[in-house]
This record gives sequence, C-alpha cells and structure tokens, in this order.
Amino acid sequence: MLKTVIVGASGYTGAELTKMVHLHPELELSGLYVSENSADALTPISDLHGTLKGLVDLPLQPLKDVAAVAKGADIVLLATAHEVSHNIAPTFLAEGCKVFDLSGAFRVQSDSFYTHYYGFAHQYGEWLEKAVYGLAEWNDAAIAQADLVAVPGCYPTASQLALKPLVDAGLLDLNQWPVINAVSGVSGAGRKASMINSFCEVSLHAYGVFTHRHQPEIAAHLGCDVIFTPHLGNFKRGILATITAKLADGVSVEQITEALTTAYADKPFVRPLGAGQSAKLQSVQNTGFCDIGWAVKGQHIILTSAIDNLLKGAASQAMQCVNIRFGFPVLTAIV
Amino acid sequence: MLKTVIVGASGYTGAELTKMVHLHPELELSGLYVSENSADALTPISDLHGTLKGLVDLPLQPLKDVAAVAKGADIVLLATAHEVSHNIAPTFLAEGCKVFDLSGAFRVQSDSFYTHYYGFAHQYGEWLEKAVYGLAEWNDAAIAQADLVAVPGCYPTASQLALKPLVDAGLLDLNQWPVINAVSGVSGAGRKASMINSFCEVSLHAYGVFTHRHQPEIAAHLGCDVIFTPHLGNFKRGILATITAKLADGVSVEQITEALTTAYADKPFVRPLGAGQSAKLQSVQNTGFCDIGWAVKGQHIILTSAIDNLLKGAASQAMQCVNIRFGFPVLTAIV
Amino acid sequence: MLKTVIVGASGYTGAELTKMVHLHPELELSGLYVSENSADALTPISDLHGTLKGLVDLPLQPLKDVAAVAKGADIVLLATAHEVSHNIAPTFLAEGCKVFDLSGAFRVQSDSFYTHYYGFAHQYGEWLEKAVYGLAEWNDAAIAQADLVAVPGCYPTASQLALKPLVDAGLLDLNQWPVINAVSGVSGAGRKASMINSFCEVSLHAYGVFTHRHQPEIAAHLGCDVIFTPHLGNFKRGILATITAKLADGVSVEQITEALTTAYADKPFVRPLGAGQSAKLQSVQNTGFCDIGWAVKGQHIILTSAIDNLLKGAASQAMQCVNIRFGFPVLTAIV
Amino acid sequence: MLKTVIVGASGYTGAELTKMVHLHPELELSGLYVSENSADALTPISDLHGTLKGLVDLPLQPLKDVAAVAKGADIVLLATAHEVSHNIAPTFLAEGCKVFDLSGAFRVQSDSFYTHYYGFAHQYGEWLEKAVYGLAEWNDAAIAQADLVAVPGCYPTASQLALKPLVDAGLLDLNQWPVINAVSGVSGAGRKASMINSFCEVSLHAYGVFTHRHQPEIAAHLGCDVIFTPHLGNFKRGILATITAKLADGVSVEQITEALTTAYADKPFVRPLGAGQSAKLQSVQNTGFCDIGWAVKGQHIILTSAIDNLLKGAASQAMQCVNIRFGFPVLTAIV
Repeated sequence: MLKTVIVGASGYTGAELTKMVHLHPELELSGLYVSENSADALTPISDLHGTLKGLVDLPLQPLKDVAAVAKGADIVLLATAHEVSHNIAPTFLAEGCKVFDLSGAFRVQSDSFYTHYYGFAHQYGEWLEKAVYGLAEWNDAAIAQADLVAVPGCYPTASQLALKPLVDAGLLDLNQWPVINAVSGVSGAGRKASMINSFCEVSLHAYGVFTHRHQPEIAAHLGCDVIFTPHLGNFKRGILATITAKLADGVSVEQITEALTTAYADKPFVRPLGAGQSAKLQSVQNTGFCDIGWAVKGQHIILTSAIDNLLKGAASQAMQCVNIRFGFPVLTAIV
Repeated sequence: MLKTVIVGASGYTGAELTKMVHLHPELELSGLYVSENSADALTPISDLHGTLKGLVDLPLQPLKDVAAVAKGADIVLLATAHEVSHNIAPTFLAEGCKVFDLSGAFRVQSDSFYTHYYGFAHQYGEWLEKAVYGLAEWNDAAIAQADLVAVPGCYPTASQLALKPLVDAGLLDLNQWPVINAVSGVSGAGRKASMINSFCEVSLHAYGVFTHRHQPEIAAHLGCDVIFTPHLGNFKRGILATITAKLADGVSVEQITEALTTAYADKPFVRPLGAGQSAKLQSVQNTGFCDIGWAVKGQHIILTSAIDNLLKGAASQAMQCVNIRFGFPVLTAIV
Repeated sequence: MLKTVIVGASGYTGAELTKMVHLHPELELSGLYVSENSADALTPISDLHGTLKGLVDLPLQPLKDVAAVAKGADIVLLATAHEVSHNIAPTFLAEGCKVFDLSGAFRVQSDSFYTHYYGFAHQYGEWLEKAVYGLAEWNDAAIAQADLVAVPGCYPTASQLALKPLVDAGLLDLNQWPVINAVSGVSGAGRKASMINSFCEVSLHAYGVFTHRHQPEIAAHLGCDVIFTPHLGNFKRGILATITAKLADGVSVEQITEALTTAYADKPFVRPLGAGQSAKLQSVQNTGFCDIGWAVKGQHIILTSAIDNLLKGAASQAMQCVNIRFGFPVLTAIV
Repeated sequence: MLKTVIVGASGYTGAELTKMVHLHPELELSGLYVSENSADALTPISDLHGTLKGLVDLPLQPLKDVAAVAKGADIVLLATAHEVSHNIAPTFLAEGCKVFDLSGAFRVQSDSFYTHYYGFAHQYGEWLEKAVYGLAEWNDAAIAQADLVAVPGCYPTASQLALKPLVDAGLLDLNQWPVINAVSGVSGAGRKASMINSFCEVSLHAYGVFTHRHQPEIAAHLGCDVIFTPHLGNFKRGILATITAKLADGVSVEQITEALTTAYADKPFVRPLGAGQSAKLQSVQNTGFCDIGWAVKGQHIILTSAIDNLLKGAASQAMQCVNIRFGFPVLTAIV
C-alpha cells in the first residue's frame, strides 16, 4: 500500500481525489491537508463534502511542517493554489515523494508565462524542466518515469484531446487559428464564496476573453496558436469545448475519423463518437471520460469535446497518472 | 409626481423596486441609496443589475444625512437590513415621508420578538404600534391611511394569503397546528457572497427548522400557532408553500372554495385556482401574483400557495401598498 | 458468476442497474431486455445512455419468450411497468430465478390496492404473499431467504427510513397523522417524452395531492396513517422528504436520537446526521446513501430524509437486496 | 384600437405576444388561434400558460376559415410553423391585414432555400419579394411601409446585431469566415413533448452542426459567409452568441467601438456594453434588449451578443415592428 497524502483537500477537486484514493486498492489515504491558516482546519472533510460521510471522515490537517509530512508519504497529490504548489512541491520531491500537481505551477516551461499569467516568478526552473505534462493519453511513457507530474488544466484537457491527433497528423491549416469556445461548470472556479459564483448571479457568459491562462497552456503543448474563449455555464460540473478549424488542403472526413479513432483505440477514457456525432455534457458528468464528436463541411471542421472538469479535467486524470506511474490497471478507482 | 427614494437599492429587491418606480407614471425616482460604507456606493445601479441598463443608470448614493434625504422625499422605500430600517425609518417619518419598510423592523408588535429573533432591542414602540402590516389584500383600509407600512415577509405572504380566509371563517381545527412547508429561491437570501448561496453548494434542503423568524410573524398575524419549515431550493426566485391542516368538523370542500374565492373576488393579484388544482412556481415567477390551489380529503386539507419572493413577497407588494396609499390603480407599475 | 438479466433496461433505473451489474465482481450481465414492441429494441444501451459508452454497449433485446430468457438466468431485475412486472415475474419465478422487482406489483398485500391505485386486478395472490418487501435495512433476514423481492418505491424508502425507528419504538403520537412533504427529481417520472417533463414546463409544484399510490404503500408498511404530498422539483435526481409529526407524551430529543442512531448503527447506507442537522439533496445524489436529520421543539418533531431516487430509491436498493440475498458484502457495486 | 389576431398562440412565443398585445394601449386582442386540429383548441390560453391567468383567459380558437378571420383583423401575428405561415399569410394579406410573420417562411429571397432547409417549395414568390426583413434596428424605414414583415430568427437576430455594424463598415477580413457559436435556451425548440426537450435529457451540446437553417439566413442578410454552430443549453430562455472574427488590416478597437455605439445610438433595445465587456444572459432574460460586448487582440475580435430568444429573438421584435409600422413609441408594450 502506497501512503498517499492530499494537500488542498477541502476543495471540490480535493474531495474527488479523497474518494478515489479511499477506493483505490493499492493506495492508503494517510493524510488530508489544508493550508495552515485555513478556516477548515481540523474539520472532518465529510462536514464540508457530505457525500463523503461514512466513507472518509478524516479531519483536514493544517499543513505546517512540509518536510515532516513528506517523510511519511509515497505519493502527494497537490490540489493547491498555483503558488502554493510551486512553493511546496520541491520539498516533497526532495524527500523522494512522487508528486502529482493539479495546479498550473509546473505546466509550461517558460518563465515569463508565470510572471504574466500567474503573478509570481518561478523559482524552480530545474523542476519545471523535469516535470512531465500529465495529459495521460499522450504522455504515458514519460509519466511512467516521472517524479513530478503537472496534471493539465481542465480546458486544455478538453481542447487538446480533440485537437492533438489532427495537429500531429498535419490535417489542419494552422494559418487560420483554431477557435476554441468552451463552457465550464461553476465548480471550475473552486469552492469559495464570491459574487461571481453566487447562485443568483450565475448565467451563461464569456470571461477572460483573450486573457485566460489556459490559452498559452494549450498553445504551448499543441504547438500552434489558438483562440480560446472560456465561458461560465449555469451548471455545477462539466466542460464542453466547441472547436472550429480549417482543414489542410484536400483533407477528408475519413482522414479525420481515422486520426481520432486510431489515436484513442486503446485509451478507454477517450471516446471518439464518430463523424456527425456531437459530445453531450451529460454523458461525461461524474465520469472520467472525454467524449469527442466531429463534422466536416468544405474546408472546415467543427469538433466538440466534453469532460467532467473535476474528474478528467483534474482528479481522475491525476489518478490516471498515478495508475500509469505505478503500473496499476488504468481504470482502477476511476470506473 | 411624488418624489420617491429607495434605500438599500443595491439588492435584488431594490432592483425590482427601482424598475417599478421608474415605470410608475405618478412617481419620480429621486434617489437610490446604499449604506454609507457600501462597496457599491457611487456605482451605477445598472452595473450591478444589468437588466436595468438603459432604463435606470443612476449611481447608488451613500446614505449619510438621513434627514436631508428625507426633506426631499415624499415616499421612502426601505429595502434595508432590519436594524437599519429600525434606525432610519423614524427620521424619514419625522420629516413627513410615507415609509414603506420591506424589512422585519415594524411587523410584529412585540418587544421580545425583536430581541429574540432579530437580535436588537426595539427603540420605537410608538411607531411599532402605528405601523400598518402591509398584507395588501387584507389591510387596504388601514394601508390607505398609513404613515408607515410594514411590508410582510415573503414566506408570511405566501402562507397567510392561503390560510387567512380559512382561519378567519373558522374552517380549520386549530388544535392541530397547520404545517407549512415552504421552498424559497436563493434570491431570498439577498445579494451577497456566501458559501451557502454558492452555486455549487445549493441543493434542496430545510433550514431554520423550528427557529425561523417568519414563524412568529405568521402566527402573530394569523392569530394561531403554525409549524413552519423553510427550505432553500435550487432556483433563483419564487416561493412555494404547501400547507397541511385539519378541518373543523363537517367542513366541506365547497365551503373552502367559497371562502377562498370570495376573499379574493376583487383582488386581482391573488388567483384562487380551484379545488383539485395545485399552484405552480413558474406561473408566478417574475409576476406580482399569488396562486392558490387546494384539495380536501376526509378531515384534512392541503393548500399550495406560490408567489415570486422578490415581487409579491417583497417589491410588488410594497408597490401595491403605495398604490393603495395614494389611490393609484392597483395594477400600476406591476402588471 | 451469477447470470443476471435486466428487463426494462432502457429507462433511467435500468441504466443504473446495468452499470452496477457490470461492476459487480460476482454477477455476469447476461441480457438487457425491453418490451417486445419498444422503439429502443436492438439499440445499444449506450446510445440511449451515453454515460455507459465503452462500459456496456450491449443492444437492448425485445423480450419475446419470457420462459426461454428465464431458463438462462439466475437473477432477474425488473425495472418494468407495474403491470408488466405483475405479468412476467411468475414465469421467471417458475424457472427458479430470484426476482428483484422494482415496480409496485408485489409491494402491498391487498387486492383492492392494485385495482384502486394501479388499475389492474392482481392475479398472483400467492406470490404477493410470498414477496418480501425489500426495505433493505429492515428486512434483511427475510430478504436473505426470498425468491421474490419487492423493492420499495422511492418516496416510501425516504419516508420509512426516517419514520420507522420512531414508529416502532412508540415515540410518536399517531393520532395526529405524520405529514410527509417530499420533492422528487424529474427522473422519477421515467424516461419518456411528455409535456409534464418538458424542460420548459418543469417548476416546483405538488401533484397527486391525497391520491398518490405511495401513500398507502407507506401506511401499509409503517402500520399507521400518514399524509403524503409529493412534489416535482426542478432537478434531475434525488428526493427530499420533510416529515412533521407529533411526539408521544414526554418524548425527548435524546430518545429520538438514540432510536435513529441505534437503528442504523451497522447499516452503512443510512446516515443519521444528528439532532439539529438537516439532510441535503446534494450529499446523496449519485450515491446509495440515505441521510436523515431531525429537530424537536415542544411536542413536535421535524425529520428530513434525502436519497437519490434512482439509487437508494430504486437501483442501489435492489442491488443491496441482491447482495443480502447472495451473501455478498453490502457495499459491493454500490460504493 | 387596431384589431389584432394571433395565430399559433399556444406556444411560448404566442403567449409572449398575447401578453404584449393585451398590454398595448393601441391594440385590441381580437382573437387567439391554433391549428384546426390542435388538441389545445377551445382551451383558455391561461390554462396552458398559467402566468396569463386573470390577464388573458380567452380560449384558443381553431383556425378554420382564414379569410373570415382576416376580414375582422387589422394586424395578424403569425407564430405558426413555417409551412403554415407560408400557406395562410397570403390570405390575410389579400384582405388587407398587416402581417408580422415570426416563422421562416418569408425571410430569405431564394427558392432553393425553402426546398433545402424547410422542406417545402415556396409558392408565393411575389410576397417573398415584397416581404421586409424585420431586423428592427436596421430596416425601420422599410418596415414602416411594409404589408408583410418577416421577423428574423432568434440566432440571426443575436448574430446580426453584433456583426452588421462591423461588416457594413468594412472592419472585418471576411476571407476568414466569422465563427458564431451560440447557445439557446430550450424554449427555442417550442412547446411540445419530445425526448430531446425532456428535462432529464437536456444538457449542453451542439446540434445542427453545419446544417442549421439559420446559417443561410444570417449569411443572406449579412452578405458574407459565416460558420454557425448552435447549442442547446440547460436553461429555459435566452441566447448567447460568441463570435470570433478576423479584423481587416489596421482596424483598431476604437473603430469597433465607434461603429457599434454609433449604430445603436438611438436604438434603445440594443445596448453596446463597451470594449472589454461581455454580454451576460441574465441581463437580457425576460426583456426585449440585446446586449453586445467585444474585445480585440492583434488581428482578432471576439464579440458576445445576448438576447431573450422568445422576446428580442421573436415576440418583442415583432412588437417593435408593429410599433414602427404604425408609428407608436418604440418601447410600447415591451418595456
């Protein structure tokens, strides 16, 4: 049994991680942590997330001595704020823990990215370089060897899983930037009180237009420019990305279908639905799946990609990475 | 044109009042106020409530000198916190304004009620005594003469409109306390950031069980004990109250129907739907109506009563009181 | 591996059963059936329920020769219409299958109940007598021996789990009938096109007032009269029941707490939350749990009870009964 | 008072029209009609749309003798199916009625459009030519003279109001087709029972990808190609369109802002929100407004446009056209 610690366990992603670690036959949930000054410290996690009651009633511990916690852990799951992950991951790594970071702190190998989009200067260039981007279906060989896995953002996961097979195969005319419109459930904003997330204020709208930090993350890992517009939707969980792109000359729908089905032939968590099909949020909510649909007309393609933002967009993708890293069957604790 | 001031205009009820005053042909919207230290001060109201853009773009003024504001006003609508209403209403009244208070500050003529349920000691017993309870369909004669109208709470409005005709006619066996179960939209909790109102945390649940301040308000004005259980529902606006009571010996459904239809025969905002009918939230949302349905079996009756909590449960009922007070047609600015 | 057949697999409960049987290590999903003339016949179940794609893609078979299907099955789960269950269960039983019926066809041992509430005359009095009511936490000894388990209705499950410990212990004054107000998600009405379930028509309202068939089911198994008012809520799944009752003379909140916690001490799927707590829909949605809260004031008690209508109110309770019947660990395939 | 008849009054748009005609001081509601064989015939409209109870309780009449109805009417509002509008509009016109058709039957001057997208051959080329496209802010001069107004579709209204000022001013590089992603509330699909609109089946998804009939409507009236992807959202009413386009060389955000604010300077129902602002569904739901936001980066622009699909996307735009046609103040019966 691998001793597993979750830091930032009080949030929605933390709760999902907690449940999966609890159910995982090879992992032992050895500690749930929150920041030292959190109002949730010492509260049983099931008081915050009633769904866990009777399953996991452990109290949330204030994280004081990182090194001491690290010494007792084999696996660390960081569901922490970006800068917190940045600050504490090296300590866990120094003690030999395998670290799976769900924040943005180690996703893009560029210093200016962090100052511009995250508001802090990155201090750990070495770890940034060693970090493996945890897009599980694409980087499994590297993940299997990694000490530090940077689990992708929710929007980048939905976007890349649809686009990557086409970009890699040269099927798109990238002179015209792909347009990614995506709608996220409110849980994507985290578990906190704010006017923006207030029930009566939520209705569909775009935000972060031209400025969202997931645009450079997508572009960096896809290797091409994209236009990305996130939206807040009036639902709790899930992301639907609708992607419009121009095809390279002479590309047929059959080539598209071939590229997508081949890419995911042995990847159970990505379900290519077929040409003429459209991904539906409901089919993936509360699951670790990504559904992808597509249609072609003339020189254009429209793809739809749906995931659960808290699972395939965060917690279950982290668990996929854990399973890959340690050689456990890929569905373990997820399906 | 009567000069009309709204205090507490930043909230959901304030926005509804603002729109109605704007549309009212006999009223002039002469000022929108928020508390002196409000973060919303000097912001145009339409920046907070986008639906008002182009209709009313006045800035929210910090309320500093109450007496000065009072001197320029004929009508004052208080959509303020209970204790704030309590503190400022007398100043407006002293200057001769007619005051319509949507808070609980003048609803129940009992000192202990305020210390127990509202957490402050009432200082204005004289005004408490003079205040007229603004249940518009029942107190219109008194409202027409009032200087201070205490507009009822949302739950009490839905509950009393259904029960009052039956209680007054002696059709119920009150030894068995009527059971009122009511579900409110989240807007009932006001416009503010809180975990309870956070989009991802909202799902149907009871709250304030046996302790909600609307129970004594209902009991006081109905003249009988009731058991009242409020619930938070996963919708923005509206209240549905389901009321179970025991009939007095020998009472028939025809007597019930007669009592309800007679009571509201010339009251356009209350719509008795008939025996065997059930009030539906959607029919009253965004309207000033109250729908009432009922069914009888053996010695029991079940009533359903639906209103929009922000309108008939607050703003439109206040406007009904204004219309009654000044002799304007009852539908003005509401339908 | 026990060969397991699901009849009525196209509906929401059928889909939940399908997933659980698929995940159950001791069961083999040997057939999914729909009625002979169903438009869904021959369609893969995952085309109707996208969430199952890649997990279970079996086609729905038209059920023609019941006896032939029965010969190949050890366990039969009936998620069929009431009269269909009534008609086909005896054939499965005659072939030695263990039958778990999720319809109302074998729940109440009274002939007039079926003619009055279900519109058909019951033809199988012997099986009606042998059927065990599958309220899993209360009838496990009988379930362990049963050939035919009548899985309770969704509202009766939520209602009885809260009331039964108190009624059995004599803690309530039943001269005053307990008042059960319950709100169900729309999935309770089944998977079908209708105006009532149409997205734009759904808003909170009571239905079946004094006439719903779950009232006599509750009364029969609880052994006392109750007033039961169901409501349709604007959410997909879940039931919240709010129950108001009169206490027997001198009963204290401590006695209530003792009765509820003792009753469910070793029953992991029922979670007594404690006095002063209130059950919340979100904590049980997509789970097999029932949460129960309660509060006492003077001679009255208010209980709240929450379940997922498709799981603890149907599919997972059926699976609990399967686990009990065959001696599998109680959490298997549910948590 | 102009005698006004509504055909197709049973639907959601019909109900909105009914309310507006009822409130309009210059119009007299002289008849509500449904198709001859409608199950709703002879039912009071307020039984279908509870919100109208007490306001308009007229029964829905089966439309048998179109010419006879036409003789008694000054204004006819057609909220009918496309082919029905096509069939009956000429009879009303022949009797001298002014006809406002909310269907697609007279929107695009192309025969093949009707056979391809609507499935019928257009028989009234003369009327198709005379029909004025009722995009109220843009065609008011022609509307003021029209006998037949073809009120635009909901998606085309939201899309064109944002794009038209920019296209007309030559600010876009149209070699790259503008990408319009739009999400509509479920009411856009009409008032009917269907699996697609069933409450439990609704979740965000794209539909009609590359095939929706509103794409050619937009392209025809805008005069340029566009890529249009409609989505069904999990809300009752409203449309949000997010539009991504390439700017012509050297175009600045100031030019965009200038074009949009100038275009709508004296058009109260379109509210340009300013650069950097984003349209929000909630601000326009239940109103006749269209909100438009925009942002520019490099050579790209993203616009967001929000309307209420039943109002600015249908009924209130029709009423705007009535007001324009007869010289009534533009806000009449809408605000």
